[in-house]
Amino acid sequence: MLTDVSLEVGLAAVLERITPLAGEAVPLLQALNRIAARDLSAARDLPSHRQSSMDGYALHGDDLGQRDNFTLQKCLRNGEWPDAPLLPGQAVGVVTGGPLPEGTGAVAVQESVTVQGEQLFLAVPPRLGANIKLPGEDFLAGDLLAKAGARLDPGLLAVLAAFGTGEVFVYRRPQVAILSLGNEIVPGHMLPLPGQLWDSNGPLLAALAMGDGAEVVSVAVAGDSCTGGVRERMSELLEQADLLLTVGGGAFGICDHALAELQGIGTEILFWGVDIKPGSHSGAAVWRSKPVLSLSGNPAACAVGYYLLAAPVIRSFQGLNPYLERVTAVCIDDFPRSGGPRRFLRALAACRDTGWQVTLQPGQKNSMLRSLVGCNALVELPAGHQPLQPGSPVSVLLLH
Amino acid sequence: MLTDVSLEVGLAAVLERITPLAGEAVPLLQALNRIAARDLSAARDLPSHRQSSMDGYALHGDDLGQRDNFTLQKCLRNGEWPDAPLLPGQAVGVVTGGPLPEGTGAVAVQESVTVQGEQLFLAVPPRLGANIKLPGEDFLAGDLLAKAGARLDPGLLAVLAAFGTGEVFVYRRPQVAILSLGNEIVPGHMLPLPGQLWDSNGPLLAALAMGDGAEVVSVAVAGDSCTGGVRERMSELLEQADLLLTVGGGAFGICDHALAELQGIGTEILFWGVDIKPGSHSGAAVWRSKPVLSLSGNPAACAVGYYLLAAPVIRSFQGLNPYLERVTAVCIDDFPRSGGPRRFLRALAACRDTGWQVTLQPGQKNSMLRSLVGCNALVELPAGHQPLQPGSPVSVLLLH
Repeated sequence: MLTDVSLEVGLAAVLERITPLAGEAVPLLQALNRIAARDLSAARDLPSHRQSSMDGYALHGDDLGQRDNFTLQKCLRNGEWPDAPLLPGQAVGVVTGGPLPEGTGAVAVQESVTVQGEQLFLAVPPRLGANIKLPGEDFLAGDLLAKAGARLDPGLLAVLAAFGTGEVFVYRRPQVAILSLGNEIVPGHMLPLPGQLWDSNGPLLAALAMGDGAEVVSVAVAGDSCTGGVRERMSELLEQADLLLTVGGGAFGICDHALAELQGIGTEILFWGVDIKPGSHSGAAVWRSKPVLSLSGNPAACAVGYYLLAAPVIRSFQGLNPYLERVTAVCIDDFPRSGGPRRFLRALAACRDTGWQVTLQPGQKNSMLRSLVGCNALVELPAGHQPLQPGSPVSVLLLH
Repeated sequence: MLTDVSLEVGLAAVLERITPLAGEAVPLLQALNRIAARDLSAARDLPSHRQSSMDGYALHGDDLGQRDNFTLQKCLRNGEWPDAPLLPGQAVGVVTGGPLPEGTGAVAVQESVTVQGEQLFLAVPPRLGANIKLPGEDFLAGDLLAKAGARLDPGLLAVLAAFGTGEVFVYRRPQVAILSLGNEIVPGHMLPLPGQLWDSNGPLLAALAMGDGAEVVSVAVAGDSCTGGVRERMSELLEQADLLLTVGGGAFGICDHALAELQGIGTEILFWGVDIKPGSHSGAAVWRSKPVLSLSGNPAACAVGYYLLAAPVIRSFQGLNPYLERVTAVCIDDFPRSGGPRRFLRALAACRDTGWQVTLQPGQKNSMLRSLVGCNALVELPAGHQPLQPGSPVSVLLLH
């Protein structure tokens, strides 16, 4: 068992145990924001045939520049397939996106012609190919539409719909269970006794995991550890879920039993303790190839542990890059403290004229929730850092 | 009826008819990413009582700096409320986040003491108040947690959970119905005949609307307008939905019947035609105070019409600022065309060292879907613009 590892060593120890989950076919619209589990390619040309790109009149290729009056044969309506080829001297009305009769050399737009009964007079002759959309203009058969690991955005779903795709093969959503171990924690539907607290880490982790594409199967409080029920509860949740997040009890105080409980159900402990602040009391284990992450009960430490250790697992399960995007930003606030381990301050990042800028969230104590409201970035300060002066460049992890 | 309005006039004509939808109470975790319909404030101090911020030993205020050995009375476990005040000369074990006995002046951390049986020896005396978290440190009773119109992010949900909040009062999700009017369009589960196309605009709009917080109640294709079924279908959908989006048939060609159908069911037409490209064949109407937006059937025009006209309505319904964020960005691509009405090019925006930078998406023709895949911004070029040179500053609307 590794103890007090660096973040990189700890995260690598967990990620090397993770492989993407199986794929599943889901109906097109349910695939929104899911991750493609296979490369997606164009089954045919799009459009599949020549189309008019304007409302107007199809003219024969041989007539272009040769003639200015035509016999109007018919007007094709939307969805109507031409029943005869176009002959020289003829014109056929066509609509935007509609198919063109064989022999069409160009489409004259409505505004360039005069129609009198069956006669059509051309004021401005179109050039060859004018207002004709060629087969495969948007995509050619075999074109790669998206690689496995791509997120299905509205545009990609629309492209798939244009090919008649009914279902998309995407990675299964990781199922996540959350268990708070503290005896002092009660779930939201119960009334706390003196000294007890409502569970806020459970809802925090559930919301964060949902935002990362997970399905939360349980948000529970273990209750009294003395009854021995904690181990049964952990095993039950691990049967159901792909990932178990436990909260609290990860330090070495008199009430800290997370490590003992995890060892008690036969997990392999990957590491215990990480050299970061907040979040130092984080640990990781594996139970029958399923990961367990033990996060701190202090809210800010719980959130940082989630972002740096749990979110990468949830992303890996979906075939995504596990790592957060790192940028350099100017920090407009100061941070007077110095020294100690690597620190991750909760921050708000925005793009300015000079690139990324961050402000520090109010309430940077581990025990406070306040810094998590509206937080979209973590400012990383190296171990033994100096006090941070306003306007300093800092290394930032973007959370969205 | 206004025709060929500016975007600003058209959008204002629609938005002045929109008021936020009613609020509804939803369970805490279902409120993720929903919009608060009331100001949310702290019902009490958080924490509600003095707590230890470390695992350690509570010492009496009178003893600080006066004494270095103590009688260890007991160790409070997590969730245990002290049953007696602390007297001078006594020490009581306390846990992180746990309550403190009355009389406590400071908490000595575990590492600063030695315990032998019932005797505790202090190596480093704590200063008054050390390792004590005061009531209301995170939030004071009455503090504003979030204003009406704020999005409920994981941090805010965690704060609400800490106050024991079971349900949150949020704006109802706008219910959106989508109806494609083109005769040539068939839904994804049918096989197109020659000249027919699978519906891609319906899934596109559904996915975009879902991303903006709407609930999509129907994605349908009207089919043959000659049967007169279109008007019944429109009325039915308007009974169910808060907003109807119709697609196609908004121009004045031989197959364009959107305006006639909307007038046929007795809508008040707010405007028809907008001076933008793509998206010029967009219109808006109101039926018994419910908005209808008529969008173009060309995919890029449909998307631009959605972003500029429909998305603002969906945001307004949820009490959000209807307008997209506008920034100035450097466009690294050229765009050789010039003149014509205001153009909205589909683009990809990213934050660089010099601020926002955009690249133009491939496939900028109205008829092409390709530009919509991965699109996160619109580059706006003014009416009559010159060709765009690489490296030029441009006005950009951010879509996320």
